[in-house]
Amino acid sequence: MVGHSFMGAAHSQAWRAVNHVFDLPARVELTAVCGRDPERVAAAAQRLGWADHMTDWRALLARDDIDLVDICTPGDSHAEIAIAALEAGKHVLCEKPLANSVAEARAMAAAAEQARAAGVRSACGFNYRRVPAMALLRRLIADRRLGEIRHVRAAYLQDWITDPEFPLVWRLRREHAGSGALGDIGAHIVDLAQYLTGDRVVGVTALSETFVRTRPLPAGASDGLTARGDGADGRGEVTVDDATLFLGRFEGGALASFEATRFATGRKNALRLEINGSLGSAAFDLERLNELEFLDATQPTDEQGFRRILVTEADHPYLSAWWPPGHTLGYEHSFTHQVRDLVAAVCAGEDPTPSFTDALQVQLVLDAVERSAAAESAWTQVPAAGAAVAEAAA
Amino acid sequence: MVGHSFMGAAHSQAWRAVNHVFDLPARVELTAVCGRDPERVAAAAQRLGWADHMTDWRALLARDDIDLVDICTPGDSHAEIAIAALEAGKHVLCEKPLANSVAEARAMAAAAEQARAAGVRSACGFNYRRVPAMALLRRLIADRRLGEIRHVRAAYLQDWITDPEFPLVWRLRREHAGSGALGDIGAHIVDLAQYLTGDRVVGVTALSETFVRTRPLPAGASDGLTARGDGADGRGEVTVDDATLFLGRFEGGALASFEATRFATGRKNALRLEINGSLGSAAFDLERLNELEFLDATQPTDEQGFRRILVTEADHPYLSAWWPPGHTLGYEHSFTHQVRDLVAAVCAGEDPTPSFTDALQVQLVLDAVERSAAAESAWTQVPAAGAAVAEAAA
Amino acid sequence: MVGHSFMGAAHSQAWRAVNHVFDLPARVELTAVCGRDPERVAAAAQRLGWADHMTDWRALLARDDIDLVDICTPGDSHAEIAIAALEAGKHVLCEKPLANSVAEARAMAAAAEQARAAGVRSACGFNYRRVPAMALLRRLIADRRLGEIRHVRAAYLQDWITDPEFPLVWRLRREHAGSGALGDIGAHIVDLAQYLTGDRVVGVTALSETFVRTRPLPAGASDGLTARGDGADGRGEVTVDDATLFLGRFEGGALASFEATRFATGRKNALRLEINGSLGSAAFDLERLNELEFLDATQPTDEQGFRRILVTEADHPYLSAWWPPGHTLGYEHSFTHQVRDLVAAVCAGEDPTPSFTDALQVQLVLDAVERSAAAESAWTQVPAAGAAVAEAAA
Amino acid sequence: MVGHSFMGAAHSQAWRAVNHVFDLPARVELTAVCGRDPERVAAAAQRLGWADHMTDWRALLARDDIDLVDICTPGDSHAEIAIAALEAGKHVLCEKPLANSVAEARAMAAAAEQARAAGVRSACGFNYRRVPAMALLRRLIADRRLGEIRHVRAAYLQDWITDPEFPLVWRLRREHAGSGALGDIGAHIVDLAQYLTGDRVVGVTALSETFVRTRPLPAGASDGLTARGDGADGRGEVTVDDATLFLGRFEGGALASFEATRFATGRKNALRLEINGSLGSAAFDLERLNELEFLDATQPTDEQGFRRILVTEADHPYLSAWWPPGHTLGYEHSFTHQVRDLVAAVCAGEDPTPSFTDALQVQLVLDAVERSAAAESAWTQVPAAGAAVAEAAA
Repeated sequence: MVGHSFMGAAHSQAWRAVNHVFDLPARVELTAVCGRDPERVAAAAQRLGWADHMTDWRALLARDDIDLVDICTPGDSHAEIAIAALEAGKHVLCEKPLANSVAEARAMAAAAEQARAAGVRSACGFNYRRVPAMALLRRLIADRRLGEIRHVRAAYLQDWITDPEFPLVWRLRREHAGSGALGDIGAHIVDLAQYLTGDRVVGVTALSETFVRTRPLPAGASDGLTARGDGADGRGEVTVDDATLFLGRFEGGALASFEATRFATGRKNALRLEINGSLGSAAFDLERLNELEFLDATQPTDEQGFRRILVTEADHPYLSAWWPPGHTLGYEHSFTHQVRDLVAAVCAGEDPTPSFTDALQVQLVLDAVERSAAAESAWTQVPAAGAAVAEAAA
Repeated sequence: MVGHSFMGAAHSQAWRAVNHVFDLPARVELTAVCGRDPERVAAAAQRLGWADHMTDWRALLARDDIDLVDICTPGDSHAEIAIAALEAGKHVLCEKPLANSVAEARAMAAAAEQARAAGVRSACGFNYRRVPAMALLRRLIADRRLGEIRHVRAAYLQDWITDPEFPLVWRLRREHAGSGALGDIGAHIVDLAQYLTGDRVVGVTALSETFVRTRPLPAGASDGLTARGDGADGRGEVTVDDATLFLGRFEGGALASFEATRFATGRKNALRLEINGSLGSAAFDLERLNELEFLDATQPTDEQGFRRILVTEADHPYLSAWWPPGHTLGYEHSFTHQVRDLVAAVCAGEDPTPSFTDALQVQLVLDAVERSAAAESAWTQVPAAGAAVAEAAA
Repeated sequence: MVGHSFMGAAHSQAWRAVNHVFDLPARVELTAVCGRDPERVAAAAQRLGWADHMTDWRALLARDDIDLVDICTPGDSHAEIAIAALEAGKHVLCEKPLANSVAEARAMAAAAEQARAAGVRSACGFNYRRVPAMALLRRLIADRRLGEIRHVRAAYLQDWITDPEFPLVWRLRREHAGSGALGDIGAHIVDLAQYLTGDRVVGVTALSETFVRTRPLPAGASDGLTARGDGADGRGEVTVDDATLFLGRFEGGALASFEATRFATGRKNALRLEINGSLGSAAFDLERLNELEFLDATQPTDEQGFRRILVTEADHPYLSAWWPPGHTLGYEHSFTHQVRDLVAAVCAGEDPTPSFTDALQVQLVLDAVERSAAAESAWTQVPAAGAAVAEAAA
Repeated sequence: MVGHSFMGAAHSQAWRAVNHVFDLPARVELTAVCGRDPERVAAAAQRLGWADHMTDWRALLARDDIDLVDICTPGDSHAEIAIAALEAGKHVLCEKPLANSVAEARAMAAAAEQARAAGVRSACGFNYRRVPAMALLRRLIADRRLGEIRHVRAAYLQDWITDPEFPLVWRLRREHAGSGALGDIGAHIVDLAQYLTGDRVVGVTALSETFVRTRPLPAGASDGLTARGDGADGRGEVTVDDATLFLGRFEGGALASFEATRFATGRKNALRLEINGSLGSAAFDLERLNELEFLDATQPTDEQGFRRILVTEADHPYLSAWWPPGHTLGYEHSFTHQVRDLVAAVCAGEDPTPSFTDALQVQLVLDAVERSAAAESAWTQVPAAGAAVAEAAA
């Protein structure tokens, strides 16, 4: 694993747990973790359960005892590490968003396509696909229980930077994070919307805002923030979006609205989805991730209503491996399911999902959103990833 | 109508509205309202829309232009007025609880049985039966959608007297109210439980408490409160229960729990019901009276969940007369539905429900509850009302 | 009153009830109702409680015994009737949306301004301002309890035309309704958003769709639908939007999203609002109209949470006139409150709200939305109504 | 660890995870697991992460490399193993309910008191005390934020045996499980109620029922079920309660209701609590374990409401070690917190909670409940555990 902060901890938990819960044809070993700071990575290895630790990710790729590399660094280093890892013949799990730009994402998707020919697998870490309620909803939609999809209503609401004195962390700088709320949390709802519907967003109109323009430099700010002329007054410029909203059309004709914000006071991690179709509807809130609301419009009108399905039954996705009905799971389990599916696919010689191309498709939406927002909300087409990958490969 | 405070206002609203909403074979006229205080009853008549006002209810009964008497006084006067009205050949709607004692209730039920032979109708005002969600639930249970009933869980939670300085109003004195939370709000959940299940409570064990034993006498306290030795310090004794809880068994084998309290801080009018059967379950909260939660256990396990049925569809009880789907009703509409059903029954020469005998059955439960609470929670049988009425008639 | 279908019924209920609930300096009399069809208007008068009925609205305006005219017709006749009524010196309550076009709305606002000089009052029927939870939220925001507003998230979701065989009623034809979901229900959320924040939408980007393009002509279709070439196959063209979504910016800097749709399967009347500010947030759903969710971000973080305020306390707007705490109101009460405020203002010689100019401001937003949707979502400015009225007056 | 089925898996997860999440002065090692069947325990050791496995728990106790024994067997073996472990100088964590009888529980509590003198620690596994929302509620009540407690309303609702053909597993036989719903899930709500209020139940009246009297013997039924004369028809007798309800009084004067049932169709693991005090109220549902509803009655009445506190903030109990706000925990984390607190206490030379005496206090309530249910709901006093332990020690 490369990187060991928030996502590194979440992924480590999954790697540690997966064999204790699921029957898999292979046993996972946490061989080595890599980070830039020797002391911090040593402490992380100890805390997170990795046998070894390193500071040079290229050295990590050179090791023979490593089959798979899990990339948990900020987005600006994804492309370089992932492409090198694939070329080194390592399977790759790369955190989302796949990259900070379409160009990088395209290169990564092309590299993944090439590696795939050699049996080297890759996947992007859109973990919310593995929340059982989301997997169940995918099944319902694939079974046409919602009929023709008319509306997708998606929002990812957080509030952790509403305080103007919250420091200028790396997630608030474009050079590291690529974008702000859009890439961090907006990426999740774009991926979920496309995954759940089995359709893709083909055009968007967008609006973006940075409510708080400068913030205090973090204690011990590194990464050349001050060198860049910021911080004379101890503050630096926020160079990403605090909030981005966009409307879109799906290829199949559905209308969609998306909102990603870090200024929704009181909403901590409210990823909300509602999908309306000709035969039914569904709704979800990540703050209540064990529940799926489902309405079946084919039932008699006097009995219809949104049912709160507690997604903890043995016949729900992933659940047979866990606890009895009603004994809920949490946020972290989505990562455990993610590595379960990844390991199972690698062992079976199959492609895990979402592929880098799927993740590129998300990136293409984010890119169109940024271009629309920069062009006074002008309607902006989203190309198909397949063509983009072919182009990059050519 | 006799009485014109809270219930009088609610009933008046219903009488005024019913012909504007429902097609009925008769047109309701608000002929006269009766109250003890000449000035207050005159003001009430004006405010509530009654053509005339009087202070002597016997004079009211003597009028030829009155077909039906609606009794909205405190429980201690129900028996006398209702029996006189029935004997005078007036149809009667009597507020719940039917009476303050079983003896009175039995006499009223016997009088109602006699009057019925002469085509004179009577009903008790358990208005919550006419909340559309409750009528819908009755239909579902009658259609065996819940299967064999195993559990009834009922609570009626309010908090209006948690402040120890809230005054000693008539509802807190046994001689006027009969009992406290038990008769006022406990009566509703007993009636609903029996109505919805179509079954009756046959035995109980109970617990009762008065948390605040004395309260300030209300400004202008009348009714001999001070004469009774109370109030030397400006306070008088609370002589009814603040909260009563009881467990019971239904004749059909279901277990039940009931709670009526005025000390559930933050719960304003939370009449909550949950019923579990072998084939399904339902839940309700009066604070969200347009909704019924229904679970159909015959559906595939991965799709089961409590559905929130918004009970505003045209095929829901009473709703075709109101607004389009999703346009909600409120508390007062239960009274409008009550008089709709009453007028329809009277015009059709049929017996409205609940009958005085049904209400006596509730009273018999309340009485058993009081006796159990007074006897260290001893298990106490509840006799069948039919036998009681026959006994009274003999 | 002119018009007597759905809105006519809702308004009549309010006129009948208001003096029985609120203390007002004047007593309302339901003098006459006007409709095109003599038989239907006669039946409506009887049902809805109007003393007289007419078929010529100009004759209605000529009557001396009428002080106020309530216009409940489809939007295409609002301007003509309202302007004539104002010129006849009648106070006017006009249903929303104010008109089917900005030009009409502007003329109406100008007429209202002129009439006002003569003490003739006017208001537009955005009744949801008078839902107590909305009035409470307005108070909280005006008291700066939410701080600086950052996000307004508004949706009005219905599903009554998801069936492609639902007939082509007047609301689905542009010449009568002006627009579809946008004007019918989108108008409400635009007005609420502007009213609650005390701010106005200054620019928008929009997306619109008609999912079902033709529908069966209604039985007895009139209004020249067939004459227009529609209906050779018994079907006619839907000429309004089924769904319209738009993003906007408020003058004060807040971002907003709006959605109005009649294709949200399972959502019956889900007007949902969420507002996030620097100090707090609030959320509302019209399907639970007695509740307001409020988060106070100034409280200690370990105690923060969205509170469900049951808006039924005596110190909540309008509530002291109704029932005890926890005894809920319904949809129709918003109309009762609307006429209460209107009558109070007229008697006090004050201007009721929302004024025609306020309603014109809504119309200007709707117009910008339609223009943006027609221009590939191009960003479209919304002019201020004041200037528009001045221009019309000039 | 002794025992390795459901509870064994949950506890193992906690032991594996605790050092990766919390800073503790000691590192946990999963030394050995013990079970009766050699093959099954070997597989369990592999699956659950134990270094060694054994079939003789006495041999386990004899090992020098074991400091702490975690007892996860059915209740009928708790006393023997726990007392032997304590005598062997091992710290003990024993699953709830502490024992199947008061006599056993009393002996265990006495043994724990003796061992304690030698620095040997013990705790009972009432894991729900460690759900963060419950720990937060304990803090609020201890800080007197709810004031004087008036009502405790507790129910634990499941539905896993509503099907009459569900087999006769060990939990349905008195000789193994002690009781049915009462001891299995009722024990949890009794413990929580006493823990949260800091008070104890002093008297009860109870009602109990077994709805389904015989069930199919499980495939490969052992434990002498058939030998006992059951099963001639392939079915055996259910000898425990399906549902038990009881009312109680707390020493401090609060009234309480409790319900434990396995027949609440559609309720999977609904442990619900509501506590009303003179200054506030709180409500909880284990199916939404990241949330606590809290009402502060000292705030202005027009702003009061139950707040949904999402208990995922860094200043909430246990949360600083986990994920960012809004990233939820699940059922299993209560066990991780339990072992965290246990290890911390053992290392600090302090007594972990709940003690065996605390658990005995729960057992005394359960015993009184069973006696009341067997005696026609007669009011039954609950003795204080302290006295009972002293008596056992004498």
